[in-house]
Amino acid sequence: MTIINVAASKVYDVIIKNGILDDLGERITGLFGRCTAVIISDDNVFPLYGERVRKALKKWDLKVLELVLPNGEKSKSIATYAEVMKFLAENKVSRSDVIVALGGGVIGDLAGFAAATYLRGIKYVQVPTTLLAAVDSSVGGKTAVDLDIGKNLVGSFYQPSLVACDPETLTTLSSEVYRAGCAEIIKYGLLGNAEFFSELAKVPVKEQYEKVIATCVSMKRDIVKRDEFDTGKRQLLNLGHTFGHAIEAKSDFSLSHGFCVAIGMAIISKAAVRKGICDKSVSEAVVSILKKYSLPTVSPYTAEIICEAVGSDKKIFSSKLNLVVPEAVGKCRIISTPLFEIPGWLEGMEVSAK
Amino acid sequence: MTIINVAASKVYDVIIKNGILDDLGERITGLFGRCTAVIISDDNVFPLYGERVRKALKKWDLKVLELVLPNGEKSKSIATYAEVMKFLAENKVSRSDVIVALGGGVIGDLAGFAAATYLRGIKYVQVPTTLLAAVDSSVGGKTAVDLDIGKNLVGSFYQPSLVACDPETLTTLSSEVYRAGCAEIIKYGLLGNAEFFSELAKVPVKEQYEKVIATCVSMKRDIVKRDEFDTGKRQLLNLGHTFGHAIEAKSDFSLSHGFCVAIGMAIISKAAVRKGICDKSVSEAVVSILKKYSLPTVSPYTAEIICEAVGSDKKIFSSKLNLVVPEAVGKCRIISTPLFEIPGWLEGMEVSAK
Repeated sequence: MTIINVAASKVYDVIIKNGILDDLGERITGLFGRCTAVIISDDNVFPLYGERVRKALKKWDLKVLELVLPNGEKSKSIATYAEVMKFLAENKVSRSDVIVALGGGVIGDLAGFAAATYLRGIKYVQVPTTLLAAVDSSVGGKTAVDLDIGKNLVGSFYQPSLVACDPETLTTLSSEVYRAGCAEIIKYGLLGNAEFFSELAKVPVKEQYEKVIATCVSMKRDIVKRDEFDTGKRQLLNLGHTFGHAIEAKSDFSLSHGFCVAIGMAIISKAAVRKGICDKSVSEAVVSILKKYSLPTVSPYTAEIICEAVGSDKKIFSSKLNLVVPEAVGKCRIISTPLFEIPGWLEGMEVSAK
Repeated sequence: MTIINVAASKVYDVIIKNGILDDLGERITGLFGRCTAVIISDDNVFPLYGERVRKALKKWDLKVLELVLPNGEKSKSIATYAEVMKFLAENKVSRSDVIVALGGGVIGDLAGFAAATYLRGIKYVQVPTTLLAAVDSSVGGKTAVDLDIGKNLVGSFYQPSLVACDPETLTTLSSEVYRAGCAEIIKYGLLGNAEFFSELAKVPVKEQYEKVIATCVSMKRDIVKRDEFDTGKRQLLNLGHTFGHAIEAKSDFSLSHGFCVAIGMAIISKAAVRKGICDKSVSEAVVSILKKYSLPTVSPYTAEIICEAVGSDKKIFSSKLNLVVPEAVGKCRIISTPLFEIPGWLEGMEVSAK
């Protein structure tokens, strides 16, 4: 078991422990006393773990409500959010009660935003069941839903009261979801921890889940502590995301977020070499580890198309953006870049497969 | 001009000044520099003041966007909220921009919630144009929208960056809206300021707008400072609201909120006399001042019906509620009361007109 204490605007623990699903009743009662626990989950995850979580909560005499939503990004909409609010109100969920977000990033973001705004804020517990949610989205209090025009445009900063991560739930992940999570994990190594990066190249993530999750969460904790509201250092976490997100949008989200982040990291590393910001060995190490995890390193689109997609990215509301650029493995720099200079970063580069 | 500095989780000024509408460009530029200002207003208020505000903003070279919604409580819905979010995103409003909420409580609550949650929070300025909004809802950071099942069930605590109150805008209020505002003003006197209370009985609110607004805002500021997130003392502001809200709901919102608060204050004062919590002179003073402002003091419903309405109030999610009870003019107490004891408070009382 590893416990990581996060001190943001709220102080809470991230507990990483095999079998913690069965302790949820005890943990929640310990934190909040007797209350109603509202499990919000999706139709992929709930059939796998819903029964166990329900039992664990009932064992401690908590009243349990369950709301199971369709899986997938479509549920991260204002329409589904409105349904969640209606469900909470109709069931007279009160400010003393708690939401349990059981699932991956979509459920965590949506349930977190519901918790942030129902009765102007009630408590919630994150129970991440994907690797990406475990190492990233469940920690740090970014909650969100999407608009048609772009992802994560609506939301709030609202910290959970507990993150309970059970690595055993990760054994049921598909290969693609596993690898997508690994891309974000490699990102942590590249942006701030060279030792972790080389460890990941030697020992596969799935053979060291607890340690890997603990390392990523600790790093994220430190970054969030310094910049909870994402106005500075927290943007380091966007490493690989500028070009990655453009590719993701261009593919109409048919390529997974994690895969696009992998491609984005490969591109920005190569671009950094060309700009003389880092040594060639850095981009080689990045491409090598990504390949080891069967992650893509080249884009399905040309540099020109990517730059165009960056420019029309619905999420970019300014004439500048912050590029996160590697100086070495384990060290990155944020470079504020006018949009018109973006093509210069990719000029003449081979970013797509022949 | 009166400036009241509010120090909650954000520090900001409430400026009360005749003609401040014409200074909005200067004020906003002073706070945020050049940015886009999004005026959110309704079709009652915008035709009266929209042009002036637009001019004031353009004079300082701000880019101005305008979103005019239908007036009335119906606009405080998740559906309208979704429209606002779409408008902001389609117009590429960014985190450096500012929302200007020009209107009464509905616009302030809705625009505040939009500001709280668009891109996880952008800045907003409250420009209250009703008495109720000026003395109450524009200050303190409670933002909200309604669900079908009950009012204000969705929202967040999110402080504005500036409240700019122009008492001249209050001269266009209808008599009913004016009197409704006066009910909330009298509430401030009764809950915490005996001198103010007797002043209100002598000099009509409309003859001393700036002073009255400043007094109420200062009191609210002090309360919010001690309890921003409404877990204790802030509930004092609910004086008159328990029975008032039940009557309002029972009337299907055909009776205005302010009028119902007036009735609620009269009822709780009389009940407090019967319970021996305050002297008869208190309830007499309350009824007398309410009558002076042509506000109702008796309910259209019997005590029995009111108690039933309290019990089925969709906003009560607990088996207990906090009654705010006068001990004297200028002094109130919060009494945690189990729902089953509520009828005992009104037993045998004459609360309705014969």
